[in-house]
Amino acid sequence: MNDIKATWIAADWGTSHMRAWAIDESGKVFAYSESIEGMKDLQQNEFEPALLRLIEKWIDDKRVTPVVACGMVGARQGWVETPYQKTPCVPINKNQLTVATTKDTRIKVTLVPGVMQHEPADIMRGEETQIAGFLKFNPDFDGVVCLPGTHVKWVKVSKGMIKNLTTFMTGELFGVISSNTLLSHSIKGDGWHQKSFEKGLIKGFESPSLITSELFSLRAESILNGLDSDSARARLSGLLLGVELHGAQNYWTRNKVTLIGSEILTKNYQSALELVGGECKLFNIESATLAGLSSVYKDLHSD
Amino acid sequence: MNDIKATWIAADWGTSHMRAWAIDESGKVFAYSESIEGMKDLQQNEFEPALLRLIEKWIDDKRVTPVVACGMVGARQGWVETPYQKTPCVPINKNQLTVATTKDTRIKVTLVPGVMQHEPADIMRGEETQIAGFLKFNPDFDGVVCLPGTHVKWVKVSKGMIKNLTTFMTGELFGVISSNTLLSHSIKGDGWHQKSFEKGLIKGFESPSLITSELFSLRAESILNGLDSDSARARLSGLLLGVELHGAQNYWTRNKVTLIGSEILTKNYQSALELVGGECKLFNIESATLAGLSSVYKDLHSD
Repeated sequence: MNDIKATWIAADWGTSHMRAWAIDESGKVFAYSESIEGMKDLQQNEFEPALLRLIEKWIDDKRVTPVVACGMVGARQGWVETPYQKTPCVPINKNQLTVATTKDTRIKVTLVPGVMQHEPADIMRGEETQIAGFLKFNPDFDGVVCLPGTHVKWVKVSKGMIKNLTTFMTGELFGVISSNTLLSHSIKGDGWHQKSFEKGLIKGFESPSLITSELFSLRAESILNGLDSDSARARLSGLLLGVELHGAQNYWTRNKVTLIGSEILTKNYQSALELVGGECKLFNIESATLAGLSSVYKDLHSD
Repeated sequence: MNDIKATWIAADWGTSHMRAWAIDESGKVFAYSESIEGMKDLQQNEFEPALLRLIEKWIDDKRVTPVVACGMVGARQGWVETPYQKTPCVPINKNQLTVATTKDTRIKVTLVPGVMQHEPADIMRGEETQIAGFLKFNPDFDGVVCLPGTHVKWVKVSKGMIKNLTTFMTGELFGVISSNTLLSHSIKGDGWHQKSFEKGLIKGFESPSLITSELFSLRAESILNGLDSDSARARLSGLLLGVELHGAQNYWTRNKVTLIGSEILTKNYQSALELVGGECKLFNIESATLAGLSSVYKDLHSD
């Protein structure tokens, strides 16, 4: 089994992680690897070695193996800056791909461009590939895709095009507020209390401008009333998501939402949307990423 | 001059700083010192040495010098936990003072209690002393006091009593968002651009639930449109303050506000309040702190 070499390799290379899939002749994934060598921790000349550490085992020395990568690897601080496409646009414009030059001649690395919006200013890198992949399964989709994560993307998609997008920093805020503020004294570990999440969600949704006082109140309740860590953590998550859902109403009140993200996050978003009267369904993120990267590979090798 | 000893010593001992004033027989401040030995960096047995490092030069070896201190020094993680008074209450209940036992018999340290509110849960430590001091100058005050800072306090005061309070984590959020999130790439130094502050303020005030997407938009604008650091920093401040002013409307729409805080912060709050139609005046924070601590000293030594 160790002798199987990849026909091509798909990579989702973000800020903090790199994920790679080895794909055989028939288009099937036969191996997966990931590392924490994300964009933020690499200098420009460290990208090629980091990639090789993860995928060299799948490379056939006797030919060139195509690697197709999306994500922050194409950012200004990444390996090679890929240009942004401007909305409205197809998720991936096959004429805008960028090749990252490598010293190792056994690989040819192609990077997917990101998408930008002028007003209000917004950007994505990686999510466009997931949307492209999702559209392979749902070519006539007309609606809203939400991709929860560190920087949550809400995206209007119609006729195969990304119409507009809004990014919410909800995930990153949850991280810094629970780790780097006085709430870190009240929130330990990664426990959860669903009722507290729901309570926070409704508060955040109904009174978004009280968010920063609700945060302090969490701390006060833990001092005065012994609020436990699991409840505090879930309520913080609910509060922030409640504010986001209020701000994203233009997206979800008139559309059924397709959620693409990790299982735990999409389940939270699903329960949150249902609480405030939205509708959604889930789509597997790995399927979306792989279908998006596959479409690029097929386009490059269709001759 | 080095020989003057203090009749008593006033101290404002917060999370990150200790400030101390040496006061003579006539009640006048003749010296001031500060250190960064705040509550968060001290173990319980380190408070007395830290205090002595700052004030020993003012102590007369031949008698006991009273020290009156307010702030987080009286928190659970502080020197001695002082009990909270419950709203509605006078800012400082002279029957609830706590003495911190010292090995050094030349000082007697008295700590001012904090104030708590049950529903919604909220707390303060230090600001009650500033309010007490402000009331010494304005005994018939009936209105709202706002104390900007890391944890901003909005306080309804009437008939010499603290009626209710709301804390907003605006200052702490500004710190962690500009230092610990992806916005740290767009915000360097401590520059300012007033028009950007005002633009952010209006956005935050008019659409509080879009706050987390406005934050991301700041980063996108710096990547796409070269938004400079001074503008980004001022707009972040404006956005967060706009959300706070929306959330604090119950306080300032029906009352003229008295702002007590650092010069730079109170000026920002003043321009912000005026932009959204509020009215305010400024009161010097050092005068407030000293008058509050003096009132405790006088009460203890009125016999």
